[in-house]
Amino acid sequence: MQFTAQEISLMLNGTIEGNPGVTISKLAKIEEASAGALSFLANPKYEQYLYHTQASIVIVNNSLVLTEPVNATLIRVDNAYGSFSVLLEKYNTLKLNKKGIEQPSFIHSTAQVGNNAYIGAFAYIAVDVKMGDNCKIYPNTYVGDNVTLGDNVTLFSGVKIYADCVIGNNVIIHSGAVIGSDGFGFAPTANGTYNKVSQIGNVVIEDDVEIGANTAIDCATMGSTVIRKGVKLDNLIQIAHNVEVGNNTVIAAQSGISGSTKIGENVIMGGQAGVVGHISIAKGSQIQAQTGINRSIEEEGKKWGGMLVQPYQGFLRSQLLVQQLPELKKRIEELEKTIAELRNKQEVTS
Amino acid sequence: MQFTAQEISLMLNGTIEGNPGVTISKLAKIEEASAGALSFLANPKYEQYLYHTQASIVIVNNSLVLTEPVNATLIRVDNAYGSFSVLLEKYNTLKLNKKGIEQPSFIHSTAQVGNNAYIGAFAYIAVDVKMGDNCKIYPNTYVGDNVTLGDNVTLFSGVKIYADCVIGNNVIIHSGAVIGSDGFGFAPTANGTYNKVSQIGNVVIEDDVEIGANTAIDCATMGSTVIRKGVKLDNLIQIAHNVEVGNNTVIAAQSGISGSTKIGENVIMGGQAGVVGHISIAKGSQIQAQTGINRSIEEEGKKWGGMLVQPYQGFLRSQLLVQQLPELKKRIEELEKTIAELRNKQEVTS
Amino acid sequence: MQFTAQEISLMLNGTIEGNPGVTISKLAKIEEASAGALSFLANPKYEQYLYHTQASIVIVNNSLVLTEPVNATLIRVDNAYGSFSVLLEKYNTLKLNKKGIEQPSFIHSTAQVGNNAYIGAFAYIAVDVKMGDNCKIYPNTYVGDNVTLGDNVTLFSGVKIYADCVIGNNVIIHSGAVIGSDGFGFAPTANGTYNKVSQIGNVVIEDDVEIGANTAIDCATMGSTVIRKGVKLDNLIQIAHNVEVGNNTVIAAQSGISGSTKIGENVIMGGQAGVVGHISIAKGSQIQAQTGINRSIEEEGKKWGGMLVQPYQGFLRSQLLVQQLPELKKRIEELEKTIAELRNKQEVTS
Repeated sequence: MQFTAQEISLMLNGTIEGNPGVTISKLAKIEEASAGALSFLANPKYEQYLYHTQASIVIVNNSLVLTEPVNATLIRVDNAYGSFSVLLEKYNTLKLNKKGIEQPSFIHSTAQVGNNAYIGAFAYIAVDVKMGDNCKIYPNTYVGDNVTLGDNVTLFSGVKIYADCVIGNNVIIHSGAVIGSDGFGFAPTANGTYNKVSQIGNVVIEDDVEIGANTAIDCATMGSTVIRKGVKLDNLIQIAHNVEVGNNTVIAAQSGISGSTKIGENVIMGGQAGVVGHISIAKGSQIQAQTGINRSIEEEGKKWGGMLVQPYQGFLRSQLLVQQLPELKKRIEELEKTIAELRNKQEVTS
Repeated sequence: MQFTAQEISLMLNGTIEGNPGVTISKLAKIEEASAGALSFLANPKYEQYLYHTQASIVIVNNSLVLTEPVNATLIRVDNAYGSFSVLLEKYNTLKLNKKGIEQPSFIHSTAQVGNNAYIGAFAYIAVDVKMGDNCKIYPNTYVGDNVTLGDNVTLFSGVKIYADCVIGNNVIIHSGAVIGSDGFGFAPTANGTYNKVSQIGNVVIEDDVEIGANTAIDCATMGSTVIRKGVKLDNLIQIAHNVEVGNNTVIAAQSGISGSTKIGENVIMGGQAGVVGHISIAKGSQIQAQTGINRSIEEEGKKWGGMLVQPYQGFLRSQLLVQQLPELKKRIEELEKTIAELRNKQEVTS
Repeated sequence: MQFTAQEISLMLNGTIEGNPGVTISKLAKIEEASAGALSFLANPKYEQYLYHTQASIVIVNNSLVLTEPVNATLIRVDNAYGSFSVLLEKYNTLKLNKKGIEQPSFIHSTAQVGNNAYIGAFAYIAVDVKMGDNCKIYPNTYVGDNVTLGDNVTLFSGVKIYADCVIGNNVIIHSGAVIGSDGFGFAPTANGTYNKVSQIGNVVIEDDVEIGANTAIDCATMGSTVIRKGVKLDNLIQIAHNVEVGNNTVIAAQSGISGSTKIGENVIMGGQAGVVGHISIAKGSQIQAQTGINRSIEEEGKKWGGMLVQPYQGFLRSQLLVQQLPELKKRIEELEKTIAELRNKQEVTS
């Protein structure tokens, strides 16, 4: 994709300073931009970059007063950052603007494909799938029996959705994510082996959720594992059976939530955190990366950390003292020596 | 799938109380059931739910004496929990009852497909694959050269099995799992680069093993990485080259086992635990989630935890004291002050 | 594949002792070898195995003096270990010697396929892909729009590469790895929901990199996430947007690097380590498994560990003292008691 300064200026309702015919084919930060790139300057802190950038076009605020000559063509707008965001969005829409049904793909005769769909080659749409409008199903993706997809769902290449799962509107699922695999349920027997407990529930993913690459969300034993509206899950996350993640909660990569736990709304969880099963975490909680949450958190809106979870400030203080333990131990030894001496003297004295 | 109370009662050899024509299409817990669901009541603790449930049919024990009117149709049996488990199993069998070879799929002319197989579209069965009977190979799955699959193996969509691996009977592997990827072996050179060490071994998975979504099991450098009979691995687990996991061991999600380590039989390992290479863990060990196991465990049947592994009770006590470190430090400071005073007085006294 | 002692001896320019017609079909360690296997003896420590091995052929050093009778056919060479490595390499090359374009596969009319390519069935090569020579694209793999692949690239089954990524020469990517998924970027709004920040950058993987199974590398928000020459990444690793990993750095399984962090050259990172965003780690750093790196590391070539990173020796000392905390607490209590007594006596005395 290639655009002239003229075309971009028209899109943004801007004013050109420089060559209106110069073309760009990519977007870049002003400090990293090379020839053929469009960039922007919003923060005055970065103004020095403007006079040395290799960018072909830079979007700047109307209010900017130049203090040196500039090589790039400028497009002046009211709000350079806002205008650049508009371009980012447009660029992304163009990039992801796939349409039509590629061959070979597999669409079962009972499946309902919505309007305006993209279905890539080697995608598999199983029995009784119901699909809303404007869905993009990238190549090599599997949508199992009786799965429901809302409108504007994007499944990137290699997503796997097991039978009976329900996916809401505007959901984005990245490559390799697995939705609806069996919950990890086994009943021990007398001889040390395990019997599988049938996992017949599903996963329900509500609207506006985004799920990262290679994340796994198990189906419920019965009922549903539920990812509520607006949740954002990063890559390589584990969500076990019957978990519920509340609205607008954000979880960073490689965290894991054990079975039947309920995470409240608007929780923020760092990477590699782990949560045991059958507990609940209050809304608005902020969980430090690598925290081990071994009990319910009932106070809302607090920060937490530690291997056995504790309030974050206490965690920090304790961990710093862990690092000082060799010195603390020395002070205890000092004290023991001093006291032995004192005692000695006292005995002599008395 | 839809069934009448009459049909279910016949399957379970039960007695109907209520409308024999009422139909259900799903199974649910009594406290969550909606119209059209079948549920069960086994534990008297939940009896109150029976009088308010939305379930259309509830399976109850013959011995149950009603104390209030019930809306649902009841099916009385000797053992309500056992009968419900039978239905769960049947439901699951029906749901997974795929048959036949879908097109397009790729089955090399030298591959042997067993009787009664399901091979989904876009599945790839490579050169010299040997497959037992009743295997289900879901769409978009890859079975590499010379792989052996036993009877009743289920590979869910997107499983990848590298060349030469051997999979036993009744093995279930979930979507995205990778079996037989190269072990992580590199020889450092004088200039700081690394030479790859060829990884020519395989993975052997014995009977009755279940492997979770997106788990990765590397092949051995030479010989075999071995997952013994009855092992259950959860999602997103890492098993490195030449590891051996003993019979009936259960490992929770996101744990990792480094190269050449041997895990004994009937070990239970929590999530996100990590084990260094070239050690062994005694049978029956119970490993707390997030434990870091940096040395062999030789005593059998003990509980362990901690960042550098230690007995679990000690770990708990130590971690609680870590949280009390700020207070312990204060007590040390108190002591130092008091002693300085005592010493002072003593010097004055003497 | 089957070879006689005669054939192998010719390859290695060796001398046969025993039956030149004996055949082998696999390679094995001398202590694990069975009939039909070829093994080697280089380390004199293992000499005893030579006299009891089941191997059909053993490669030994010319200098070896036998002290007992041997059943296996021997092939004498100058350097037994070196010769065995040569065979390992040859074996591996034969095993991976795939050629040609299998059907059905999807190669867009605008894509350039290099010479001598292997493209497996159900592989998807999108619009404007540029591919060097000798690439192997295994079945069920996805190469997105405008991706560039160098020479000798191997993508094992199920690899997914998003649009615009650039892959260098001699890169090996294992099954299930995802390259170029969206960075995890969301802007909070006043009502607690999040707006997606478009992620329009790419991933650049330089020459000689190997990437493990189910590892995920996110694209940059703008610009590139960069994996430099010679880097080796194990399985299930998370690399966030705009990260840079320096030349010849090696990272073990399940570690995670947060956004915009720069890892220096020749760093060695153990498994399950986590690194926060927007920091840098000095070249040559050695990071213990499960370390939590919450700040930049500026000194080069040092060892580090701990939940809040600290020098490794200090970490070990501190963690051992954590395990001794119950005893340290007792000593503090002892001291408090003794001092109370001393004070008492002093008061009596004075």
